[in-house]
Formats: sequence, structure tokens, C-alpha cells
Amino acid sequence: MSRTRVHNFAISLDGFGSGEPQSFEAPFGHAGERLHEWMFATRFWDADGGSVGVDHAFAVRHGDGFGAEIMGANKFGPPGWQDDDDWKGWWGPNPPFHTPTFVLTHRPRPSIEMEGGTTFHFLDASPAEALEVARAAADGQDVRLGGGASVIRDFVAAGLVDQLHLVQVPIVLGRGTRVWDGLEALEQDYDIEAVSSPSGVTHLTLTRKVSAQS
Amino acid sequence: MSRTRVHNFAISLDGFGSGEPQSFEAPFGHAGERLHEWMFATRFWDADGGSVGVDHAFAVRHGDGFGAEIMGANKFGPPGWQDDDDWKGWWGPNPPFHTPTFVLTHRPRPSIEMEGGTTFHFLDASPAEALEVARAAADGQDVRLGGGASVIRDFVAAGLVDQLHLVQVPIVLGRGTRVWDGLEALEQDYDIEAVSSPSGVTHLTLTRKVSAQS
Repeated sequence: MSRTRVHNFAISLDGFGSGEPQSFEAPFGHAGERLHEWMFATRFWDADGGSVGVDHAFAVRHGDGFGAEIMGANKFGPPGWQDDDDWKGWWGPNPPFHTPTFVLTHRPRPSIEMEGGTTFHFLDASPAEALEVARAAADGQDVRLGGGASVIRDFVAAGLVDQLHLVQVPIVLGRGTRVWDGLEALEQDYDIEAVSSPSGVTHLTLTRKVSAQS
Repeated sequence: MSRTRVHNFAISLDGFGSGEPQSFEAPFGHAGERLHEWMFATRFWDADGGSVGVDHAFAVRHGDGFGAEIMGANKFGPPGWQDDDDWKGWWGPNPPFHTPTFVLTHRPRPSIEMEGGTTFHFLDASPAEALEVARAAADGQDVRLGGGASVIRDFVAAGLVDQLHLVQVPIVLGRGTRVWDGLEALEQDYDIEAVSSPSGVTHLTLTRKVSAQS
């Protein structure tokens, strides 16, 4: 059965998945790279020198068994990328998705085929509609929900997410986009596990309860 | 040297130290007792059957070396307690403070001497003024800052808190009083450690950096 999963989504202690303002120079706003330093220090990211402990064990699941990704417009590019016909995402010619990748935007454009198996498709669709399209493209494999925070919130609120791996980083951002807003009583639908790492981050794993599955 | 410390202050994943609305029947609002179940299961709380692991090790520090407590009006009683001349707190004749205990309120009243060493004093004062009074009463021992969330925020923002022990409980409250608001970049002033417990909670310890001490 095809699952919908979130992996390696980093948040601050106060729950922000990015800072502000987001721009071409600062994709995560005033958060800079601080939400992701834990990941850069793993073998998953740094094939030569990275650690292979609990941070790595979680991080590698990002690539495990996915046939498609869905992401929000704010993950694909800085504010205004829709006005740039040449924008092809942050990731260079060979993006790290290697599957059909569906970008949610109210201004769809023609699909872009990249190297390495990634093709960007652009959808103006509800979470349920987008997931149906992505699931068909995933051909039996899982669908990765890539963020940002507001997209994760919308899909969770719609009851569409089976597993979430959030990484709580010990910083207080104070402003940005918060992942928890509107998700009161989430623990009724998910089993929640917390594992702190020697690196200082805490891995939160949310697994949808059988009783909450549609 | 006398330190100011917060202990056993529980928050939800989304950072709320209590739910809403608070009342005599529901001191923590819709959170009920869910923020404190981890503590009820420790030997600190249950002398006969409680656990003696990491949750207990943290919990017992609540009683370790304090000469005074400061608490906000919302911890001392339900909304409107100032109109009840007979209100003496939630804790019965022998409250668990056993020291002078300073209640911040804009409507001070005469002090109340309880059993077991607790005397409630009522102060209409700024955080710095209240701490000066409490520190004098503590006679060289530490001052416990008892909460709630808005009082902790105010004292931290004023640079008056040396150590905080927060306990993150895996529930999403969605509303209430949030402890992180206004504390952007707190990590510049505090070393932050996270330790997850088999009980499901994560203990966050914030220790003020030497460079941040006044």
C-alpha cells in the first residue's frame, strides 16, 4: 500500500519550519542554514566525513521507497519565481528527488524534465487531488510530502499523511511559518515518539494510528 | 551565589504551558492533567510506586536548594481569585513550597502563613523588583520561578533566569499560553540540552551561558 510520508522536516523549538523573509539569497529567511546543520553533518549528506548515528539513520529514510514527491510553491523557489520563465528550482540540473515531483501553485506551467529522473509538474489542486495524481505517478511506491510547513499542515489536517519525521532543532526563531498551527489534538490520530540525539536535535516521529486511517 | 531556576515546567509540542479557558474546575483549561502525567508517574510524586528513572531525576530538582518561590497570579488561583478573601491557593493547608512564596498580582493583599513553612506574600512589582525581594528572603539559597508561561517569558526576557527545565509532552494543544513567544534567539544566551525519556516526554534544559550573565 502506498503511504504518504514526511522526512527530515526541521523545525525550531517554537515550531517554525522556516524563518522570514524568504528570498533568493535566504531560502529559509533569518533561520539561515541553522535548521539543517544536523543533516549536513551526517553521512547521508557528506559521503566522506558524515556521522552514521541516529541522525543519519533517520536522514537516509528520505530516499527510501518513494515514487513521487509533492511540495509547496515556497519550497520550489523564492517569492515571485512564477514570474521567471527560466526558474527550475534550487537544486541545479540533477535535483535530489529522482521521481515525478509535483509543485503546488496557483499558476501552473509546463512540466520540466531534469536529469536523474526528476520531472517537475505544476498543479493547481487541493491536497486530496494532488495526492491522487502523485500516487498514480508513484506506481505503488510511497509519496514524499516535502513541505514547507503550511503544506504539511494542510495535508495533515486533511487526514492524508501516514508518517511524519520532524527534527526539532534547539533554536528559537520567533517568527516564520509554524508547523503545528491548526493541528490541535494531533496526538489522537498519531502515535508520537521522541528521540534526542547527541547532536542536540530531537527526532519526532508521528505514525498514524490504525484507528485514524481512512 | 543565588540562582533563579525554573523546574518541571511542562509544555505541549506547540509550546503551550497551559490550555484554556482556565477555571476553578480546570486549572489548566482543556489541557487537563495531560501536561503532568509524566510527573505523577515518578517517585517524586508517588512515593510508593513511582519510577526512579530520568523523569524522577529531573523532577526531584524541584525541591533542591530553594529559599523562595515567585509565581504569577494565574498559578495561585483561577481567574477572579482576587475577589475571594478566603482563597489560599490550590494546595490545601500545607503547600509544596515550604518557603516564602511571592505571588505577583496587581491587587496585593496581606500575607498568609500556611503550614510547613510556606508563607504567601503578594507583590505588585516588576520582574527585577520581585526577584530582589525574593532573593533577600531566600537568604543565599536559590529562587524558584514557578510559572505560568507568561511569567517565565517575562523573567527570561528581562535576563533574570539562570536555568530552565522544560518538559515537552507529546500533545498538541493548539491554544493557551505559549512559553516561547518573544524569546527569539534564546539559544544565543543559553546552552540547550534535550533528553528524551522512555515515558514519551523530552526534557529540555536551558543553562545560561557565562557570557550572557549580568
